[in-house]
Amino acid sequence: MKAVKVFCPGTIANVSCGFDVLGLCLDSVGDEMIVRKSDVPGIRITKIEGADLPLETKKNVAGVAALAMLKEITFEGGFDIEIYKKIKAGSGIGSSAASAAGAVYGINALLGNPFTNAKLVEFAMQGEALASGAPHADNVAPALMGGCTLVRSYTPLDVIALPTPSELYATVVHPQIEVKTADSRAILKHNVTLKKAIQQWGNVGGFVSGLFLNDYDLISRSLEDVIVEPIRSVLIPYFKTVKVATKNAGALGSGISGSGPSIFALSKGADTAHKVADAIHDIYKNSEIKFDIHISKVNPKGCKVLPL
Amino acid sequence: MKAVKVFCPGTIANVSCGFDVLGLCLDSVGDEMIVRKSDVPGIRITKIEGADLPLETKKNVAGVAALAMLKEITFEGGFDIEIYKKIKAGSGIGSSAASAAGAVYGINALLGNPFTNAKLVEFAMQGEALASGAPHADNVAPALMGGCTLVRSYTPLDVIALPTPSELYATVVHPQIEVKTADSRAILKHNVTLKKAIQQWGNVGGFVSGLFLNDYDLISRSLEDVIVEPIRSVLIPYFKTVKVATKNAGALGSGISGSGPSIFALSKGADTAHKVADAIHDIYKNSEIKFDIHISKVNPKGCKVLPL
Repeated sequence: MKAVKVFCPGTIANVSCGFDVLGLCLDSVGDEMIVRKSDVPGIRITKIEGADLPLETKKNVAGVAALAMLKEITFEGGFDIEIYKKIKAGSGIGSSAASAAGAVYGINALLGNPFTNAKLVEFAMQGEALASGAPHADNVAPALMGGCTLVRSYTPLDVIALPTPSELYATVVHPQIEVKTADSRAILKHNVTLKKAIQQWGNVGGFVSGLFLNDYDLISRSLEDVIVEPIRSVLIPYFKTVKVATKNAGALGSGISGSGPSIFALSKGADTAHKVADAIHDIYKNSEIKFDIHISKVNPKGCKVLPL
Repeated sequence: MKAVKVFCPGTIANVSCGFDVLGLCLDSVGDEMIVRKSDVPGIRITKIEGADLPLETKKNVAGVAALAMLKEITFEGGFDIEIYKKIKAGSGIGSSAASAAGAVYGINALLGNPFTNAKLVEFAMQGEALASGAPHADNVAPALMGGCTLVRSYTPLDVIALPTPSELYATVVHPQIEVKTADSRAILKHNVTLKKAIQQWGNVGGFVSGLFLNDYDLISRSLEDVIVEPIRSVLIPYFKTVKVATKNAGALGSGISGSGPSIFALSKGADTAHKVADAIHDIYKNSEIKFDIHISKVNPKGCKVLPL
């Protein structure tokens, strides 16, 4: 195989209670990427459509992730990468992670899959580090592994694939205001109260249990963030209104997707996910804010090869 | 049924990563209690053997738990309770919880089980409040429900029964020094760093996943407490030595049982649990500290009725 076309899915990191550890993979929104083997060593970004991003390999997240991988490959040639961005940069649904994950997934496919998903996550994290200043796995892990994932530990990296209830849907609204990941991290407090931390890890345990038990009600009760959401949500217009309206429309719960500004809501079943989308639409349609709404089943597979 | 004899198991709260939320139930160590229906309204503690505890109902954890229950019962009579303590008070393996749980379990049995386990946990928590100054559920929940439990939330109370891997054993050493729960809580810091809180909730998610996946290795990796253990362990002689020795003997991990001073280690299988006990014995036998060691399968049932 000389070339491969890859679907690079969007992802929701944190999932309310699991700041920096939980993530889930989307189905209906993602980039595409074509990766080609080349006789010329190194990594080249040959084309980017849909976003104004740097072509210089070391300044591009896909490039950096691919370079990290190349260091551990004996292959003498190189790879050319074309990126077709569909996830907006800065949306909070893992735009940079999709690029980083897609690049290493594509190269791995071209080489006959020598690396495990866990190893691909490590490479892709290098791309994430370029984008956000720190090597995070809570978007690249679900992008590569699909479904819901838990980053139990970063040192050493230990990512757990969680089960994905088959009727779990996400509705995501991206209000098109700019919130940079680095800024969004900077406003977080260094310390939290032990009391709130206990609430949070009770909810992480509850959410994980809910996935294993296929218990949507328990998932719903666990979708609560007492630490990060109260701080970050002030950056997002209509956040509280969306939270109330999505719950009234039947959502299991909602929260900030990654570092925002996108807001996600989880629902049981496609019908509810559509009703939730309608409720969100009604809130933003009369505002001056441009917005996109995505409705997506939770994607159990992650990155996948598309017909070229 | 006029009278019932109850086995009231010891429990391990916190289980390293899950401060205030996780707990598990022991099998080989527990109190016994006889609860008798009486025509005389109210609750009376008629006998206590094995410990110097108050007979006055309102000053006794079993009494307080039973009184909390009595408020929601239409039964016109009362109950007499005999307590045979085998779990040492202040040991850190849920001595007060066993009394509180046993009392409400026994009364429920005599009344034909009108209350759910979840409701019994609420009553028993009132007894715990007397013992430790705050109504905690991380011992009474596993004592009543058996196995491993997660207190997802206190407001409202939401306790999740987690699966119990069939080969999960606990080895517990009780070094007989006095550490009062209230004192042990007082030395905790009000604030924790967000970084450590993230590590902790990653481990809670990992531990819960390990139970559902029957993955002893994941359970082992998740048995880590970066928040409470570093502070409380200084109160427990030989703690670090025990931690190293139990790991070397094959334990999955170890930590402080509840607020201490007992130390628990979890193992896969009875053989390893015995080797772990031997390793602990070798540490304390040459010290001046009196100690008990318990080896117990994780008890999937919790409180149970014994033949009278």
